[in-house]
Amino acid sequence: MLPILFVLLFLLPSSHAADFCVADLTVHLTPSGYDCKKESSVTTDDFVFSGLGVPGNTSNIIKAAVTPAFVVQFPGVNGLGISAARLDLAPGGVIPLHTHPAASEFLVVTEGTICAGFISTANKVYYQTLNTGDSMLFPQGLLHFQVNGCETKAVAIVSFSSPSPGLQITAFALFANNLPSALVETVTFLDDAEVKKLKKLLGGTG
Amino acid sequence: MLPILFVLLFLLPSSHAADFCVADLTVHLTPSGYDCKKESSVTTDDFVFSGLGVPGNTSNIIKAAVTPAFVVQFPGVNGLGISAARLDLAPGGVIPLHTHPAASEFLVVTEGTICAGFISTANKVYYQTLNTGDSMLFPQGLLHFQVNGCETKAVAIVSFSSPSPGLQITAFALFANNLPSALVETVTFLDDAEVKKLKKLLGGTG
Amino acid sequence: MLPILFVLLFLLPSSHAADFCVADLTVHLTPSGYDCKKESSVTTDDFVFSGLGVPGNTSNIIKAAVTPAFVVQFPGVNGLGISAARLDLAPGGVIPLHTHPAASEFLVVTEGTICAGFISTANKVYYQTLNTGDSMLFPQGLLHFQVNGCETKAVAIVSFSSPSPGLQITAFALFANNLPSALVETVTFLDDAEVKKLKKLLGGTG
Amino acid sequence: MLPILFVLLFLLPSSHAADFCVADLTVHLTPSGYDCKKESSVTTDDFVFSGLGVPGNTSNIIKAAVTPAFVVQFPGVNGLGISAARLDLAPGGVIPLHTHPAASEFLVVTEGTICAGFISTANKVYYQTLNTGDSMLFPQGLLHFQVNGCETKAVAIVSFSSPSPGLQITAFALFANNLPSALVETVTFLDDAEVKKLKKLLGGTG
Amino acid sequence: MLPILFVLLFLLPSSHAADFCVADLTVHLTPSGYDCKKESSVTTDDFVFSGLGVPGNTSNIIKAAVTPAFVVQFPGVNGLGISAARLDLAPGGVIPLHTHPAASEFLVVTEGTICAGFISTANKVYYQTLNTGDSMLFPQGLLHFQVNGCETKAVAIVSFSSPSPGLQITAFALFANNLPSALVETVTFLDDAEVKKLKKLLGGTG
Amino acid sequence: MLPILFVLLFLLPSSHAADFCVADLTVHLTPSGYDCKKESSVTTDDFVFSGLGVPGNTSNIIKAAVTPAFVVQFPGVNGLGISAARLDLAPGGVIPLHTHPAASEFLVVTEGTICAGFISTANKVYYQTLNTGDSMLFPQGLLHFQVNGCETKAVAIVSFSSPSPGLQITAFALFANNLPSALVETVTFLDDAEVKKLKKLLGGTG
Repeated sequence: MLPILFVLLFLLPSSHAADFCVADLTVHLTPSGYDCKKESSVTTDDFVFSGLGVPGNTSNIIKAAVTPAFVVQFPGVNGLGISAARLDLAPGGVIPLHTHPAASEFLVVTEGTICAGFISTANKVYYQTLNTGDSMLFPQGLLHFQVNGCETKAVAIVSFSSPSPGLQITAFALFANNLPSALVETVTFLDDAEVKKLKKLLGGTG
Repeated sequence: MLPILFVLLFLLPSSHAADFCVADLTVHLTPSGYDCKKESSVTTDDFVFSGLGVPGNTSNIIKAAVTPAFVVQFPGVNGLGISAARLDLAPGGVIPLHTHPAASEFLVVTEGTICAGFISTANKVYYQTLNTGDSMLFPQGLLHFQVNGCETKAVAIVSFSSPSPGLQITAFALFANNLPSALVETVTFLDDAEVKKLKKLLGGTG
Repeated sequence: MLPILFVLLFLLPSSHAADFCVADLTVHLTPSGYDCKKESSVTTDDFVFSGLGVPGNTSNIIKAAVTPAFVVQFPGVNGLGISAARLDLAPGGVIPLHTHPAASEFLVVTEGTICAGFISTANKVYYQTLNTGDSMLFPQGLLHFQVNGCETKAVAIVSFSSPSPGLQITAFALFANNLPSALVETVTFLDDAEVKKLKKLLGGTG
Repeated sequence: MLPILFVLLFLLPSSHAADFCVADLTVHLTPSGYDCKKESSVTTDDFVFSGLGVPGNTSNIIKAAVTPAFVVQFPGVNGLGISAARLDLAPGGVIPLHTHPAASEFLVVTEGTICAGFISTANKVYYQTLNTGDSMLFPQGLLHFQVNGCETKAVAIVSFSSPSPGLQITAFALFANNLPSALVETVTFLDDAEVKKLKKLLGGTG
Repeated sequence: MLPILFVLLFLLPSSHAADFCVADLTVHLTPSGYDCKKESSVTTDDFVFSGLGVPGNTSNIIKAAVTPAFVVQFPGVNGLGISAARLDLAPGGVIPLHTHPAASEFLVVTEGTICAGFISTANKVYYQTLNTGDSMLFPQGLLHFQVNGCETKAVAIVSFSSPSPGLQITAFALFANNLPSALVETVTFLDDAEVKKLKKLLGGTG
Repeated sequence: MLPILFVLLFLLPSSHAADFCVADLTVHLTPSGYDCKKESSVTTDDFVFSGLGVPGNTSNIIKAAVTPAFVVQFPGVNGLGISAARLDLAPGGVIPLHTHPAASEFLVVTEGTICAGFISTANKVYYQTLNTGDSMLFPQGLLHFQVNGCETKAVAIVSFSSPSPGLQITAFALFANNLPSALVETVTFLDDAEVKKLKKLLGGTG
């Protein structure tokens, strides 16, 4: 048996650097992601996530919820170039116009019907009603949306080409912070009354 | 209205190079993917795929099926750094030991129960029984498998960090081609009878 | 002299693949950019661009102009991971809220004063008044804007971390195409009157 | 002399971030590699490695040895996108079927004769007998092997497109750990006796 | 208002990993750049830099100055794939032959006239006199130079496709350190007198 | 047997896009490399190269030769992120000061002794005498050289982190083309006599 152990020592050089890099969220980030947890303390649990099986709470203004499995929620995706999320849309639910600055998205409808679309930089609209089992792509950084116009709930599993796709909802970026109303109006062509109404609705100031 | 058109001409420079690159499969590949279809002929249909909603046929030796939405089946993913597939496993179904040479995988069980696992280069096994709604990661290039040990069918949606993840099933690589049996035996430690039995089972020669 | 030529033949292997790849815009795109012009027909002119020295025409609704030197205007940047543009803002000029889906931006004010800012995905606003000589960064894919609130014209040179940064102006994406008004309202929280007013202003339909 | 020092101060901004990043193995990993050793403590020794000049010990079951110069053995390769190794094959020696999950390989035979091959995801076998001075490529993540079928020893220098190519030997992944035999049989089509025989040979349990 | 906060909590998952990564220069480097400053302590100041508005001191041997805004001077560019610098050339000023090992360069002349050029690996020279407003590209790693042959000062803004482009001035690499003169002569074909003269001029020894 | 073929059809989707991309040199380049040869016409020969086994002709001015296996000589490396070359140095042979603009280099001395070194952008020299079996790294884009100061020939195998590393020999870039002598002198500090002498020696004009 000794010769075999000998082989193993020579043939299996420590190469854990390449296999995976489960995020240690307690350490600082780098441009390539979080520091890796020591491999000796990594277990199967680091690669398993049960959050996408739990319906999001849609009792809110948009009647919808996003349950992310990004690196912050699922540290196992760190460095793997992929992540996912679950979308729940009650009847009338809406994932408002948004972008993912750092990833393309692949959506699969697993329940119900979703009207989804994106807008290209050439200002062309691509949208369609998707039934259960249909998939749709949203290329990186482009404005897109998902709407449930039906009487029954809808669910989708979405995956992303980055562990940290980011999520910027246009209405919240404009109306849910302290960006001065006059500046919002100048850069969007919206009128003052509309901006102030939406700031009030979404919790913005200024 | 003229001033506005004028604005559009100046402010919206032709930037279709960055948005997306739907594959034109009739043209040669490059290392970064297929040539892009002309943007003027791209429609919403290029970003929508219905194949993942159709159960794969599991009436086969492994009682399982993989339905890919890779670039060859779904040209819209070209250049987007992502793709997906559907796994169907009848009771007793098996996706045999395999790797994806070019991508990490994010699996979500959408129906039933799946026992899945991967083996690291440090030769450590990470495996677990996943219920509906559970997710599991398979880092790039590592050997992994999915098994349905239950009495009911199981389905999973898997996504990949590349439009062309590749799929190499170890048993088929060894026993379903013309790699000489003696060579197979030398590089795997398997004995001659076993190799010849599996070559016969899986259609290999030599 | 013969030995030297001999050296050159051996020591200077044809390695033009690595130096540069001036775009041949007449050929299809790939995910990595355009096909390269044959090196034998490349001249110094392919690497020189005079467009950024010409003030843009700001006689328009936004009193501003963007003059791009992206791959379509300046094929020399193809494959080099960089491009640039010139911004001209007359007094009161505005580059409306927009994103570059595929690049980060480095802005240098070369004349006048510009109020510029961006909004993070954590919904935080970063904005500041920049004087001549000041620089500001706009990370990839995030909403940002530039405004000239002064009495004199302003000019900036902006560079991008991609030959094809893309440019998506939010107001144009929403109001200058045929995305149905009801859908716009649903995904933005804007009211019908506002949406129809802006569709009229910016040339949209539907 | 002062003006010159003055020039140097202005013209040589601290740019050590770009030159190299010798790994400090005592610090955690990140997805892009190890933290860099401080440049002030880097010496020529960090870029020189003598391990590839030492024949590996082939007195073992496979009559072969792999001597890696990956980032763990040669920290200077960290961040450089390259690494190397030495293969020693005694007469009859075998580097068993394996993959490198994170790199392509370029092999050069420097002594003797080696029969080498790889299997594509299309299940096609590419193999050939290589003489001293011959080179062969093994694309990333694909199963491959090297065998010395001759009466004399063989040596090869192999290089990789990553500082951490990883090494997964199929037989060890299956038979040298605690992956349950029943599971191994299910995912490989091998029979129970064969699996148990090889588990015993290679030190596996379960 | 509670439902809205509820929405925000669900819809805006912590995704600061993707937006930006302002360098914390006090922590070690990684191959992908410096560790990120904690987002909670990042302010607008981290994205603003005023150094490019200040003329460099050209009272030196080359009558020129480079004012970098690389990651070391402007930590905000960390991870963004871009940086910039200002070139000042007094009449007769010269940025001597140099390379940027890690970036391509996009130069815009903002004042005066500059003669600039680069040499390809095919040994072909591309050079031209650039007037104010003209731009020129210098592909990654190639030798290039900028000269002000006029009677008036010249200024350029240059941007780079990396936060750490590096800067290697050939004459300083050869004559401003302790590389032995005999070795310099051997690898450059220069004669001993010339090497010693330049070592003396530029401060080299050996 | 039919069920098995059925399995193969479903389980082995056409995924040749990911495996390899042997260059078709007759088609234009792209920034990511050459177009791929059709997979159906690829054979083992495309992955095998015998050129590195043939000593280069060192009967020339530098008593040395570089035999590249870059993408142009060995199309199989296209898209694989790696290439190699053979260096032959007769006694007194020199690979003059040069850079590889697009790759880091890993050198292994396979015969004789070589004095090799590189210069960092911080202007520090790293050089050492390497014996047979020793390895040395040359980080991307940095000036480096190899010299055989011994009485016997030396050979090295070098590998690169790119299929197209490029090769720019400083002396040839300066003295073997038509870059005007006055300009050479301005950007290098060399005197006129030296420049003209070397232009004559290396075949330059102007």
